[in-house]
Amino acid sequence: MNQHWTATPAPATDRAAADQARERQARLTKPPGSLGRLEDAAIALAKLANGREPAVDPVSITVFAADHGVAAADSGAGVSAYPAEVTVQMLHNFANGGAAINVLARLLDATLEVVDVGTAGEPAPISGVLQHRAGNGTADLRETDAMSPEQLEIALQAGQQAAERAHKRGARLFIGGEMGIGNSTAAAALAAALLSASAAALVGPGTGLDQAGVTRKTAVIDTAMSRYRQQPLQLPMLALQALGGFEIAALAGAYIRCAQLQLPVLVDGFIAGAAALTAVRINQSVSSWLLYSHRSAEPGHQMILHKLNAKPLLDLGMCLGEGSGAAASVPLLRIAATLHNCMATFDEAGISGGD
Amino acid sequence: MNQHWTATPAPATDRAAADQARERQARLTKPPGSLGRLEDAAIALAKLANGREPAVDPVSITVFAADHGVAAADSGAGVSAYPAEVTVQMLHNFANGGAAINVLARLLDATLEVVDVGTAGEPAPISGVLQHRAGNGTADLRETDAMSPEQLEIALQAGQQAAERAHKRGARLFIGGEMGIGNSTAAAALAAALLSASAAALVGPGTGLDQAGVTRKTAVIDTAMSRYRQQPLQLPMLALQALGGFEIAALAGAYIRCAQLQLPVLVDGFIAGAAALTAVRINQSVSSWLLYSHRSAEPGHQMILHKLNAKPLLDLGMCLGEGSGAAASVPLLRIAATLHNCMATFDEAGISGGD
Repeated sequence: MNQHWTATPAPATDRAAADQARERQARLTKPPGSLGRLEDAAIALAKLANGREPAVDPVSITVFAADHGVAAADSGAGVSAYPAEVTVQMLHNFANGGAAINVLARLLDATLEVVDVGTAGEPAPISGVLQHRAGNGTADLRETDAMSPEQLEIALQAGQQAAERAHKRGARLFIGGEMGIGNSTAAAALAAALLSASAAALVGPGTGLDQAGVTRKTAVIDTAMSRYRQQPLQLPMLALQALGGFEIAALAGAYIRCAQLQLPVLVDGFIAGAAALTAVRINQSVSSWLLYSHRSAEPGHQMILHKLNAKPLLDLGMCLGEGSGAAASVPLLRIAATLHNCMATFDEAGISGGD
Repeated sequence: MNQHWTATPAPATDRAAADQARERQARLTKPPGSLGRLEDAAIALAKLANGREPAVDPVSITVFAADHGVAAADSGAGVSAYPAEVTVQMLHNFANGGAAINVLARLLDATLEVVDVGTAGEPAPISGVLQHRAGNGTADLRETDAMSPEQLEIALQAGQQAAERAHKRGARLFIGGEMGIGNSTAAAALAAALLSASAAALVGPGTGLDQAGVTRKTAVIDTAMSRYRQQPLQLPMLALQALGGFEIAALAGAYIRCAQLQLPVLVDGFIAGAAALTAVRINQSVSSWLLYSHRSAEPGHQMILHKLNAKPLLDLGMCLGEGSGAAASVPLLRIAATLHNCMATFDEAGISGGD
């Protein structure tokens, strides 16, 4: 039997380039270490640069949108502050250029793609939105697996193909975003399963639930998890199928394929973090190609970041999704790389060294 | 007797515009609050926009350079990891475009000016460096006042005029940077005086002192302060004259004049923070026009930020000066303003509201 495409190891990153970058940082006209985490970022980018100068441009962003059975109006689960139809309404907003990620992509001069991986109903095609649908939204994870193995494969491939398109257009950095009413429930359930943690440790207000809503959401995840007491939900593919979402699977697929293609990924917040955790559990070699952008206001993100040993650059209390936190941190990576590449060294500038 | 120019109150900021901006943030197509501190930043910029849309461009940066008697080779004080001649060497690096702030200014498409406010010796004019010299470096603050009242006035005016140039060229944001071997000693002494704190609470490694160096630096400040036991060093002009530096006075003068001209200021790190504290102590109305960019790795910065009630956007362990931390945070302000101005509202996008 052939191994699944997601298991193919990503190439090793370039440790020698990282060492050279670290050595160059010490020769730039500034006290060593005085650029703080921007120095670390430049070294990290050098390590992922495949022999080129560290850089992030061009940036390619793909937002994956999908719906969740647990958030459907007739589910009665009450896991989101917004009704499920907002997912499709936001697809139109993306297509019309009015959402946060549209504004950010224009400001960053980044390519932005939006992929419908499975919104509810059978929405008419939207101009400017790609379709790679795994279904009409997932099933209600309280009652059954969120998706079938076939649907999981389609969703993973949606991410795989997005990564390949980004690579083909010469991207130096990939950002995956998501939109899907109910997806912080799926992400919390998935992370709880992979981390063998309680639902309560991962659940938060998402788009704005009150405390009663958070309690409902926790109970929903407990119900979903209780169906799997006998099954090894630490297995990432099983957990993704049972508890995940199409957009989360697409993100995981994109991250894995980016790593295989040596295309660095800038991971967004909580939902993307759960997808990154899943991707790394599926294929450990992926982790070296992931950079982390921001610390989300969603409380469960802390545990995910900790487990991924991730130290994001920004901590601005953002929790919007869409890849917005990752996009907001692109300028810092750009600054880190440009300082690294363009500052004069002490020798070049004829400046006396320090102690 | 006429009151000093620095005492002229800055105009009030636009509270109504801030309220309108807050209300608009709630109507943009995102869960309320989900852009976190970027929403606060947009509202803060709206408050300082004088009836226009919130914006930061064009950005104008002025770096003030000066020397410090306490850091002169013959002082023997050992307060810096670098020899004093590095200040003038860095002026050449600025002129040649090789320093961090040059690279940042190019990346931001910002105007960059460099002003020699009083480097040591009588350096020949450097093409591309403005001269507004208050002296050949300050006096050794252990022995006498760092500067005369006349020198203080010249240095303040260097800042005043930089603010006026920035205003004249239509800047929407002013950043002041500094370069001066020994200036973290002056800044720590000044902040300790203004905050009635011990030297030890404000002193740190600066450009890279070891623990013995930090101890020497603390003793230097204690010696300087002990000369003033009978004098009210909480008076900001006196403290600035006794303990400050030309570049620190220039920054304070620039901040005050910017506020008077309704030109928002983005304050850099530790040295700039000490200058901001001084400016606000000289003229309380200045504080509304100051925005804060980053939390420096220099430990004394925390106390200054706390006293200024400042919550900077970035915390990257930077401690370079030159205005580099402020410049690095400009893209976040730009993002905040652009999201605010360009995102669609729920009504415009026809999207269902939340709970």
